[in-house]
Amino acid sequence: MILAKVMGTVVSSHKEPRLEGLKFLILQNVDLDGQTTGGFVVAADAVDAGVGEYVLYATGSSARQTTRTDQKPCDAVVMAIVDNWEVQGEFKYKKGKDD
Amino acid sequence: MILAKVMGTVVSSHKEPRLEGLKFLILQNVDLDGQTTGGFVVAADAVDAGVGEYVLYATGSSARQTTRTDQKPCDAVVMAIVDNWEVQGEFKYKKGKDD
Amino acid sequence: MILAKVMGTVVSSHKEPRLEGLKFLILQNVDLDGQTTGGFVVAADAVDAGVGEYVLYATGSSARQTTRTDQKPCDAVVMAIVDNWEVQGEFKYKKGKDD
Amino acid sequence: MILAKVMGTVVSSHKEPRLEGLKFLILQNVDLDGQTTGGFVVAADAVDAGVGEYVLYATGSSARQTTRTDQKPCDAVVMAIVDNWEVQGEFKYKKGKDD
Amino acid sequence: MILAKVMGTVVSSHKEPRLEGLKFLILQNVDLDGQTTGGFVVAADAVDAGVGEYVLYATGSSARQTTRTDQKPCDAVVMAIVDNWEVQGEFKYKKGKDD
Repeated sequence: MILAKVMGTVVSSHKEPRLEGLKFLILQNVDLDGQTTGGFVVAADAVDAGVGEYVLYATGSSARQTTRTDQKPCDAVVMAIVDNWEVQGEFKYKKGKDD
Repeated sequence: MILAKVMGTVVSSHKEPRLEGLKFLILQNVDLDGQTTGGFVVAADAVDAGVGEYVLYATGSSARQTTRTDQKPCDAVVMAIVDNWEVQGEFKYKKGKDD
Repeated sequence: MILAKVMGTVVSSHKEPRLEGLKFLILQNVDLDGQTTGGFVVAADAVDAGVGEYVLYATGSSARQTTRTDQKPCDAVVMAIVDNWEVQGEFKYKKGKDD
Repeated sequence: MILAKVMGTVVSSHKEPRLEGLKFLILQNVDLDGQTTGGFVVAADAVDAGVGEYVLYATGSSARQTTRTDQKPCDAVVMAIVDNWEVQGEFKYKKGKDD
Repeated sequence: MILAKVMGTVVSSHKEPRLEGLKFLILQNVDLDGQTTGGFVVAADAVDAGVGEYVLYATGSSARQTTRTDQKPCDAVVMAIVDNWEVQGEFKYKKGKDD
């Protein structure tokens, strides 16, 4: 999985019918300090994540292993909202402290 | 999924029989301002997208999760035409405004 | 799918038994002008492509969606020989004209 | 598979229900001398690996081929803790010797 | 598939039970002249390849399409030992001649 920050949304009214109802989020990968790095990806939202939140997303066929994305042409899904992460015993991010 | 712009088409008369009838689009990835970045990919068209339109495409096994691409040797599919996208609450692109 | 040019072949007599009879092609990716770019990949041949031809190849599980590659440890397949491609309404390559 | 070092953990209380109970590890890839290189990935833990250990992780659909990750939206899994590795007959790392 | 050279091995005694008996090889990708390029990957061995041999490896779900790797958390497999390869009609490598 990749650690990322929700930056925005993409709207499409003309799409593969199976995608009806899915929300598409714009994500930017972050480094271990939580800073966004270059590039972005668009992922389906399986957990009602909001703009500004840190999340994990999964790609490939694993992106279809949620109730919302099952059997859909979707190759990236936000499957967890992050509370905190630590590196070598030190917290790098705690939700609520920085937000 | 990846945000891209339809740039052109590829034609093949000699191909795996299962691919008969699929249209192949040349896509270039775009940045959050809608500008094309380096490189391109060829994707099957599941939504009748036209040259110049912004689209989302899915890759890998997820590219076979549309009626048109099911069980075909296709690893990228355009599965949505984009109406608009926004980043941190600000519209970066609205269809019809710039097109 | 990726646009590439067939550059050569790889021969293996000692391999996974299921691969018996498959031909392995050396491919180099090309840019939209048909010029080879850095790097190469080895793909199974599903369409009897020859050295010098422009082709499309598919990767991942989609590479197993041909009669020849079904259920084989093969992650890239040439599934189409390219006749022509165009970008924004202009032909960039037509088979027979340049070959 | 990729050779990596366990650097930390990610905690999420709000996630896809199927992920309940999975531990998420922060991994950094290492070179053949065991030094971490740039970038990191988050992987599910199938083998109770600890911070500081060298491990192998598998990605894609193969990351779901463990008892803990089966049918879950998980695209990377730590599936082995490394005892040692050697390159051209010379040990580059032996567990216990350097730890 | 990717053309690579077998450089060494990785040993793990604590791993996902399904991996018992699989041998892990360290591979480095090579260019068309057979010279190793940067980076390496760890792959399961399906063909009893030895250190110093040129091989092809497959990644992703295709890496599970061998008798030894079926349904295992393995995302790369050596599925062929290379005898020779040629580019535009010229042999770049012949086994036995250079080894």
